[in-house]
Amino acid sequence: MADDAAPRPVLDLTCALIARKSLTPDDAGCCALIGERLAALGFTLEWIDAGGVTNLWATLGSGAPLTILAGHTDVVPPGPHQEWQSDPFDPQIRDGVLYGRGAADMKSGLAAMVVAAERRLARGPTQGTLAFLITSDEEGTARHGTRHVVEVLKSRGLTPDYAVVGEATAARQLGDRITIGRRGSLGCNLRVLGKQGHVAYPDKADNPIHRLAPALAELTTTVWDRGNAHFPPTSFQVSNLHAGTGASNVIPGAVDVVFNFRFCTESNAEDLKARVSEVLDRHGLRYEADWWLSGEPFLTREGALIEAARAAVGDVTGLDPLLFTGGGTSDARFIAPWGAEVVEIGPINDSIHKIDEHVLVTDLDRLSRIYEGILDRLA
Amino acid sequence: MADDAAPRPVLDLTCALIARKSLTPDDAGCCALIGERLAALGFTLEWIDAGGVTNLWATLGSGAPLTILAGHTDVVPPGPHQEWQSDPFDPQIRDGVLYGRGAADMKSGLAAMVVAAERRLARGPTQGTLAFLITSDEEGTARHGTRHVVEVLKSRGLTPDYAVVGEATAARQLGDRITIGRRGSLGCNLRVLGKQGHVAYPDKADNPIHRLAPALAELTTTVWDRGNAHFPPTSFQVSNLHAGTGASNVIPGAVDVVFNFRFCTESNAEDLKARVSEVLDRHGLRYEADWWLSGEPFLTREGALIEAARAAVGDVTGLDPLLFTGGGTSDARFIAPWGAEVVEIGPINDSIHKIDEHVLVTDLDRLSRIYEGILDRLA
Repeated sequence: MADDAAPRPVLDLTCALIARKSLTPDDAGCCALIGERLAALGFTLEWIDAGGVTNLWATLGSGAPLTILAGHTDVVPPGPHQEWQSDPFDPQIRDGVLYGRGAADMKSGLAAMVVAAERRLARGPTQGTLAFLITSDEEGTARHGTRHVVEVLKSRGLTPDYAVVGEATAARQLGDRITIGRRGSLGCNLRVLGKQGHVAYPDKADNPIHRLAPALAELTTTVWDRGNAHFPPTSFQVSNLHAGTGASNVIPGAVDVVFNFRFCTESNAEDLKARVSEVLDRHGLRYEADWWLSGEPFLTREGALIEAARAAVGDVTGLDPLLFTGGGTSDARFIAPWGAEVVEIGPINDSIHKIDEHVLVTDLDRLSRIYEGILDRLA
Repeated sequence: MADDAAPRPVLDLTCALIARKSLTPDDAGCCALIGERLAALGFTLEWIDAGGVTNLWATLGSGAPLTILAGHTDVVPPGPHQEWQSDPFDPQIRDGVLYGRGAADMKSGLAAMVVAAERRLARGPTQGTLAFLITSDEEGTARHGTRHVVEVLKSRGLTPDYAVVGEATAARQLGDRITIGRRGSLGCNLRVLGKQGHVAYPDKADNPIHRLAPALAELTTTVWDRGNAHFPPTSFQVSNLHAGTGASNVIPGAVDVVFNFRFCTESNAEDLKARVSEVLDRHGLRYEADWWLSGEPFLTREGALIEAARAAVGDVTGLDPLLFTGGGTSDARFIAPWGAEVVEIGPINDSIHKIDEHVLVTDLDRLSRIYEGILDRLA
């Protein structure tokens, strides 16, 4: 796989992980491989598996600060193999680029974390507790992965101080961007009720579309908040809207609406639900609302972790990273509410979930040095 | 079929027509049977068939006034036979009620018209031209039926004066209600265009549901007109509304709306289209609108025909009929724009299109006397 004789431990471990076909939520032996390396460093391994998901909780040392390196071994399906230039589960280097499913999301991040711990611990013990939290269910439902581990550890009274998640966060070059927060996601299946009838006799029916229309106009034009320095304003979007039997002469009995909030730290799920209900009630609607919360927003305030991350990134890359809060969700949504300061730092993310996913070979060791630099400053 | 020995020509002809299974647009020999009776009276028969539809145009006499007796031989499907108390195509009398598909809509009306003409002509010739316009496509698409015949006759320069349509119009008893107009029906398939995207990145998408919502709120609350003495206000109803892929995280690229106007003589189709377009344009929507016009509204003003109908109804039933404009559409929508004064008079309509459709046996001869009374006064 590697076309160079120099010792490149991050590359080698990344390739070994890519070769393990860990389609979510199958770990395919990735955690065992990482566990062996950590056990060799003196880590205590605990398997907190649940619902077919492999979860590794590995700790070294004791007491505060508790610093967690977190990530996932599972990958999304590769799509049609024939569209890949090489087998997605056979890591290949071409022109200084390593190709394979999980190369950027996030087997390189895991490998860089393991090697960072090895290098750091070779120089002596760290302060407090150093831990790895690794799951095989981040890309799937995420029900039995990090969320479950956090619940178990929380029930033991364990409290984290810092967490670094190895998700791909860079935009154009390693270190140009790190993630310090995420928006929350709140969804709703709304059914507005009316009374079915014939369009020729509207007085004998109650058209739920007509009931809904003014309320929907209000919801789609409401300013929910104005955002803040780190987040854009909360966004409300209707994704699905369905009513009617297909017949053009029948007033439907109900209309179904699916909508979603992506919300910043200026709002919270309960307030948003209450505000929507107030609009629906004020417009006199009869309705059923089935809400689901994918995650509350979080934001890591400027402090020790962000300072350490910035300094480590600066040392390795010379860049002052953008502190980013955009993009999709990650397991940081479960770790942050547990009480940790959280940052996400990883390789360039433009190929994740795509055909020919890849990472720059030269970024692998540099990413490991960034993690090592953070550990130096915190633990 | 008839359980009484007295001569009851309307009953007999009604039963003969019911026994002909004329599922729309199949005439099943009904027009031939009627044609024989009219030919015996001296009528000239012309078959203006089109697209598999039987159309009979029968005339007697010449010049003005041209008085038309109009109706249809086709019936809607009976539904499940086992739900009927007797075979829908085997006319049966039970307790003074005649059962069968078409008993009320409108084989009794046709039979009453034929017998009315026979009785009237037995007393001497009528003035001007007496005509029958009978089709087998009123319950179906109505494309090749009365509409076609009217086009053909109009192209010959023929102009009608009066038309009586034998549709079932009575509410509780024969003569309590006659129809002197109908609302128009205008429909639209509207597609509002946006740009598909991810709900997490609404700035990169253009949500057509959000574009539509304020316009829809305006359309559903607009007062299109206030109606008039004969019509309720024009009504706008959305029957179908569809957008979305089913995925809750995708902003759809388009939303499809089906709506329908039932409009009175205070509005017209072109104005309504223009007013809707103005609203959509003012809200800045990109859209495609596919309109269909089922019929413009019509209203027969008080005049010779309504006076004749009122007087004839009063003579036979002692009632002063309500002049009605509600209910569904009929072929009167094609005859009225041709220039005729039009009324619709027929039996009680509460069983039409239903299981066990029926008509009161005693109403058959009385209905024929009403038509005869109208002919006496007009022709």
